[in-house]
Amino acid sequence: MPQLRQNAATKEWVIIATERSRRPHDFVAEPRAPTADTPRSPSCPFCPGNEHLTPPEVFRLPGADGGWSARVVPNKFAALIPDGSLDRHAEGFFRCMDAVGRHEIVIETPLHNQPMALAETPQIERVLNVLRARYLALRDDPMLRLILIFKNHGAAAGTSLEHPHLQIAATPIVPYRQRTRYGEATQYWDDTGHCVYSDMRDQELADGRRVVLQTPCFVAFHPFASRSPFETWIVPRRHSASFGRTTDEELADLAVVLKSVLGKLYTKLNNPDYNLIVHTAPVPDETEEYFLWHIQILLRLTNPAGFEMGTGIYINTALPEETAAFLREP
Amino acid sequence: MPQLRQNAATKEWVIIATERSRRPHDFVAEPRAPTADTPRSPSCPFCPGNEHLTPPEVFRLPGADGGWSARVVPNKFAALIPDGSLDRHAEGFFRCMDAVGRHEIVIETPLHNQPMALAETPQIERVLNVLRARYLALRDDPMLRLILIFKNHGAAAGTSLEHPHLQIAATPIVPYRQRTRYGEATQYWDDTGHCVYSDMRDQELADGRRVVLQTPCFVAFHPFASRSPFETWIVPRRHSASFGRTTDEELADLAVVLKSVLGKLYTKLNNPDYNLIVHTAPVPDETEEYFLWHIQILLRLTNPAGFEMGTGIYINTALPEETAAFLREP
Repeated sequence: MPQLRQNAATKEWVIIATERSRRPHDFVAEPRAPTADTPRSPSCPFCPGNEHLTPPEVFRLPGADGGWSARVVPNKFAALIPDGSLDRHAEGFFRCMDAVGRHEIVIETPLHNQPMALAETPQIERVLNVLRARYLALRDDPMLRLILIFKNHGAAAGTSLEHPHLQIAATPIVPYRQRTRYGEATQYWDDTGHCVYSDMRDQELADGRRVVLQTPCFVAFHPFASRSPFETWIVPRRHSASFGRTTDEELADLAVVLKSVLGKLYTKLNNPDYNLIVHTAPVPDETEEYFLWHIQILLRLTNPAGFEMGTGIYINTALPEETAAFLREP
Repeated sequence: MPQLRQNAATKEWVIIATERSRRPHDFVAEPRAPTADTPRSPSCPFCPGNEHLTPPEVFRLPGADGGWSARVVPNKFAALIPDGSLDRHAEGFFRCMDAVGRHEIVIETPLHNQPMALAETPQIERVLNVLRARYLALRDDPMLRLILIFKNHGAAAGTSLEHPHLQIAATPIVPYRQRTRYGEATQYWDDTGHCVYSDMRDQELADGRRVVLQTPCFVAFHPFASRSPFETWIVPRRHSASFGRTTDEELADLAVVLKSVLGKLYTKLNNPDYNLIVHTAPVPDETEEYFLWHIQILLRLTNPAGFEMGTGIYINTALPEETAAFLREP
């Protein structure tokens, strides 16, 4: 029968819908012709030669022949902008403020047709170093409270531009839902003296059925209470609340993990659309013990509907034990 | 500049992204040929003559000539099923339980090609009476804590079957996110002695710019902190925490409101995909003062992506003041 499973860290339940359950290979898409089959696209604002189409860059990683191997630019359609006030305004009952913050684009590679799943590990490591550098630059702005790094890959994941890129958004508030999650983790730490994310990692390791990959610095698994098929968490072994405090060794290892995990998803499911999110503590909590930074990858194979919107409970039609085994196969 | 707006009831912020802002008429879809242009579809399990394709019905509203005008059947692919245990099981660190509950389909009409936006008002009123009857039947099951009524209209909203239908899901737990929202409303009531949803309705009425429709029993508006373009809330004037405690007069009036609101969206935006959700208090709180039952309609014109998934903050590219004015126009 269908099962309700609770995520121990977020306290959120999911339904593992065995009545509709689909086997891992049911999620394999038809092979699709790459819409980008050349390394440059004349109209792409992120391709070399079109640098004038983006706002002035804030960071450049030099490449061969005087070019670049990665660039960071403000989002041309930024949802959060640097200049504004932190004051809350009351319009009667209604509260609002300037959407002050940062919204940047990290162009990962000059190559239009090389998604991260197909990139070389050293290039992924370079991009991770750029992300950490930008995190550290933004964290020094006292206006900013949370720095979110994420990637939208594919149309179903909300990308409008195909050229491989990540985004960094920094908000002047800790968003309500994230505040709730940090609160649950804080309560767990108060109760037990442990970080709930570290405990979850260790329990997944002890169980083993949902583990996809282990490396010296990271564990990748499909969580017990996965919200959707092939949901993947990448959790560090060393405690740190903040992505900004990762070591060089960890970033080098993380590049190996991302190459493997994204590569397996790309190859075995035929380039699925996904969102990748780096969860990290609010800037003022970077040295706290209650939270462990980690990465969540959510595939966009299904469409949340009224039930999810009305309850917050996701219905997952695949067993994470089976999807993890499927990905572990050579 | 873009603006952060807070929903006073849920405490969640949204970004009104004026930098990318689109005018209401930008959301008008191309007219699309109805995929269903006949009142019956031979292969549809919800069409008359195919009653054997659904599980045995639990409720029938008689129609003309010995037929039916509405039917309620268990969902063939139920995410929650009636038989099971309420016991939580610990698998080490992991908590799970049987996904016990109910998951029903309300077939609104025998007519395959008559979505609610095009139905006659008396038929909508009959359907609303069926929903209340099913709510009242399910609420007497002591196992169930929350009864969610919702509708997925269109492929982007997660429908697999086009025949007009609603769904009812009843869960043995109060889902975490809903528990949080009830908690915020309880705190507001403790602080002020008012229901925050009633106060929001009154403030929207006093402001007026975002009000779409007023009737004797209801107010429809695009909330100050709308999460997406054309988000519509339908809030009763009379206080009641529970949809199950609506009066006959209210249901008759609600049919008029739904016909008008869904009809305007259908006509002006060319049949957009949407989710409709009836928010109601948990069964044990039906007579509480902190919550006011209401309906939320969310159009699926845009796709939440990594930013929304990582923060819970929605980016809305339209001004609710403008979308409401657009809908008010004759």
